[in-house]
Amino acid sequence: MEKISEFTVRRLSNYYRILLDLEKRGIATVSSHRLAQLGGITSAQVRKDLSYFGNFGTRGLGYSVSELKAQIVQILGLDHKWNMALFGAGSLGHALFFHQGFRDDGFYFKHVFDVDAGKVGQKWHDVVITDQARAEETLRREPVQIAVVATPPDAAADVVELLVRSNIKGILNFAPTQLTVPDGVWLRNVNLAVALESLSFYLSM
Amino acid sequence: MEKISEFTVRRLSNYYRILLDLEKRGIATVSSHRLAQLGGITSAQVRKDLSYFGNFGTRGLGYSVSELKAQIVQILGLDHKWNMALFGAGSLGHALFFHQGFRDDGFYFKHVFDVDAGKVGQKWHDVVITDQARAEETLRREPVQIAVVATPPDAAADVVELLVRSNIKGILNFAPTQLTVPDGVWLRNVNLAVALESLSFYLSM
Repeated sequence: MEKISEFTVRRLSNYYRILLDLEKRGIATVSSHRLAQLGGITSAQVRKDLSYFGNFGTRGLGYSVSELKAQIVQILGLDHKWNMALFGAGSLGHALFFHQGFRDDGFYFKHVFDVDAGKVGQKWHDVVITDQARAEETLRREPVQIAVVATPPDAAADVVELLVRSNIKGILNFAPTQLTVPDGVWLRNVNLAVALESLSFYLSM
Repeated sequence: MEKISEFTVRRLSNYYRILLDLEKRGIATVSSHRLAQLGGITSAQVRKDLSYFGNFGTRGLGYSVSELKAQIVQILGLDHKWNMALFGAGSLGHALFFHQGFRDDGFYFKHVFDVDAGKVGQKWHDVVITDQARAEETLRREPVQIAVVATPPDAAADVVELLVRSNIKGILNFAPTQLTVPDGVWLRNVNLAVALESLSFYLSM
């Protein structure tokens, strides 16, 4: 499994969304050709991606939408619930906390931390915003698997150090800054400008 | 150029960030091997990606960081300014509007539209939030190249129709809903859950 690249995983997420949509539309089977078309890639790529995880398809019939979806859900680890801590209760943090798509996927914010005394004590749904100075003790008492960093860029490195000390293995970082983590910790940086760069590439052609 | 895939463009964005960082650290040349290492991909992939756009490297010496960066800036269309309109002045819209990384890349919000009378008239930097009912006339008077959709999911399809009528060719959509656009319009969907799915994949291994 270690050889599965970030790009393959991203395509699996993409297949998952396509299958959700096909299911919603009552479509029971899908060919690799159709999956490729909907995903904007080649059908050879689809077959290669899915072959990593065993052979789901039936020659001539294609894939069962519900079976393939169930398999991908399991591969992506979406078949159970993930608890998360949010660092930074600014507008981005707010948008992420209330993003329905996370809960739909099984990702739940259990803690929100901020350094701003004006925000500490406020309630988002049933989560009380906690002083970041109390993050380590809170995470010891009520651990989570994933932390989401939505702080200003110059605050992110300290937060990541805190997370590593707190034994958090998955970090999703939205702060536009370079961060490093030790082996065994998975860091994903979300760069909001990347999608715009893709648009400007195609608009420039 | 039409054959360049979305994934290649995404890797170019990734190289661009790595080169920015190398430049900041005063590093003048970089091998494809080092670029690959920093980007988490194979050096064969690096060489293939860059070969699409001409041969920048010198055998044995690698690439000049500043020259390669300048080339990628030009390829990605980041060598000029892009004007954008934001639809949806909620917390996500707010976070996107104030995201410094967009301005650093040359992407500027000229308009902000919302349907909420309570928000219309508020000022973000020097941009006054405008009633979405006036979006078409505003875009006719002061056109933009790119629109960013940060509305609730059920409002996004109407906004996209409005954008197509207004001759906007680049759309960045954050609303978690399936949208379709005619040929000649570039739509990019940003799904915030995808990066979390990658984390849960690796954490599940």
